[in-house]
Amino acid sequence: MAEKAYFKQHVEPQDLDFTSRLKAPNLIMAALNAAGRDAHNKGFDYVDMEADNHTWVLGRMAIEVKDRPKQYSDYQIETWISGYNRILSTRNFRMYDEQGQEFAVMTSQWAMLDMTTRTSVDLTQTTGKVHDIYMVPDPEPCAPAGRLRPLSDGERHNHRVRYSDIDFNRHMNTIRYIEMIFDRLPIEAISENRPFRLDLHFLNEAILGEMLTITTAEQEGTLLFEIASEKKTCVRASVRFLE
Amino acid sequence: MAEKAYFKQHVEPQDLDFTSRLKAPNLIMAALNAAGRDAHNKGFDYVDMEADNHTWVLGRMAIEVKDRPKQYSDYQIETWISGYNRILSTRNFRMYDEQGQEFAVMTSQWAMLDMTTRTSVDLTQTTGKVHDIYMVPDPEPCAPAGRLRPLSDGERHNHRVRYSDIDFNRHMNTIRYIEMIFDRLPIEAISENRPFRLDLHFLNEAILGEMLTITTAEQEGTLLFEIASEKKTCVRASVRFLE
Repeated sequence: MAEKAYFKQHVEPQDLDFTSRLKAPNLIMAALNAAGRDAHNKGFDYVDMEADNHTWVLGRMAIEVKDRPKQYSDYQIETWISGYNRILSTRNFRMYDEQGQEFAVMTSQWAMLDMTTRTSVDLTQTTGKVHDIYMVPDPEPCAPAGRLRPLSDGERHNHRVRYSDIDFNRHMNTIRYIEMIFDRLPIEAISENRPFRLDLHFLNEAILGEMLTITTAEQEGTLLFEIASEKKTCVRASVRFLE
Repeated sequence: MAEKAYFKQHVEPQDLDFTSRLKAPNLIMAALNAAGRDAHNKGFDYVDMEADNHTWVLGRMAIEVKDRPKQYSDYQIETWISGYNRILSTRNFRMYDEQGQEFAVMTSQWAMLDMTTRTSVDLTQTTGKVHDIYMVPDPEPCAPAGRLRPLSDGERHNHRVRYSDIDFNRHMNTIRYIEMIFDRLPIEAISENRPFRLDLHFLNEAILGEMLTITTAEQEGTLLFEIASEKKTCVRASVRFLE
């Protein structure tokens, strides 16, 4: 039967914020990279998909962070796929600190995109089924990303997409969107290392040179974010601090 | 006798630019992290220094990059200290690809700062001498960072220092300055993977909330950069493409 994958991580100086703890955006990227390595090891990652002109695209994710590891400490990322339907495959994560304590949980939904037609592939058919044998019957460790409505009003800030923002696909890096969101959080919430839940929807990709606007608003104690270019909405997100 | 240190690296997806090669800013950060780990292993890194309220500060560096490794490839960083005087310690780097070919060389000068007095410590005395026994008599693999004059005129762009820009010291991350410079390079030079030399002077630290202005100009085929806040010049740099 299929087994979960484990990846050992080390908190390097460049992963730290001013609390000397791992930055949440870096934790999320470490998790997404672990997902990539797991898929690579199992033969259904981007590289292999490209042979069929297919690629995995992150659609939604939710992460709950109770604590963040300190500098020079080790932590471990546990990841597994719990299931899929025609459109989306679900990959989960649990993060454990040096003492084996769970400090964060994450769940994400991925679609397989046909690069030629730019449409999603039916995961119950052919190439979609390659990861079939790797399902682990352990459900999501937290609620999947919830509904996020369009954000019309709020405080607005601009960001031009530069070379350092883009990835190998010439798209804005996932971590950059997440950093744009964290740059808008109340700084004291970060100093106090307050537990939080982040929900993210990835809708469209921003490309080099595009001007992005991040809109921020608050509704019933939840911070809402929308990152959009002139033409399209790229990312919607919400952050809720947990007591 | 003292020996050079070696650090194995792997080009992860997040290290790639749109040429599917390791981004130069990420290469430089990997080298600076290798320096930190080497100092840590030998007991004269930030952590140990803080005990004496001393810390290493990067003053100047120069890097020459002939080529950049491709995604999923391994590379190796060789680093050693070649000497020091009262003010500056010189640390060098050679980078080798999977085939053992040298693809980049780098040299850097570091001062030891007393955090209380904010003045540099005489390296020929007491704590400065802790790294004495680790000198390797192999000189700089490239010319040290050259003279960089103040830049009065040029094209200007602003950047507000945000949470995602700052490090554990609440200062702008070194990699962010370097990314600001690479964001101003002609994009075709990057697509063509043109060999280049980068000279950098680190003069003052930018802090959270400060508005930075990057000024860019060209003189005799060399691109010049100055990053300054309202109050002070933070970084001066030059980029020359090598034929």
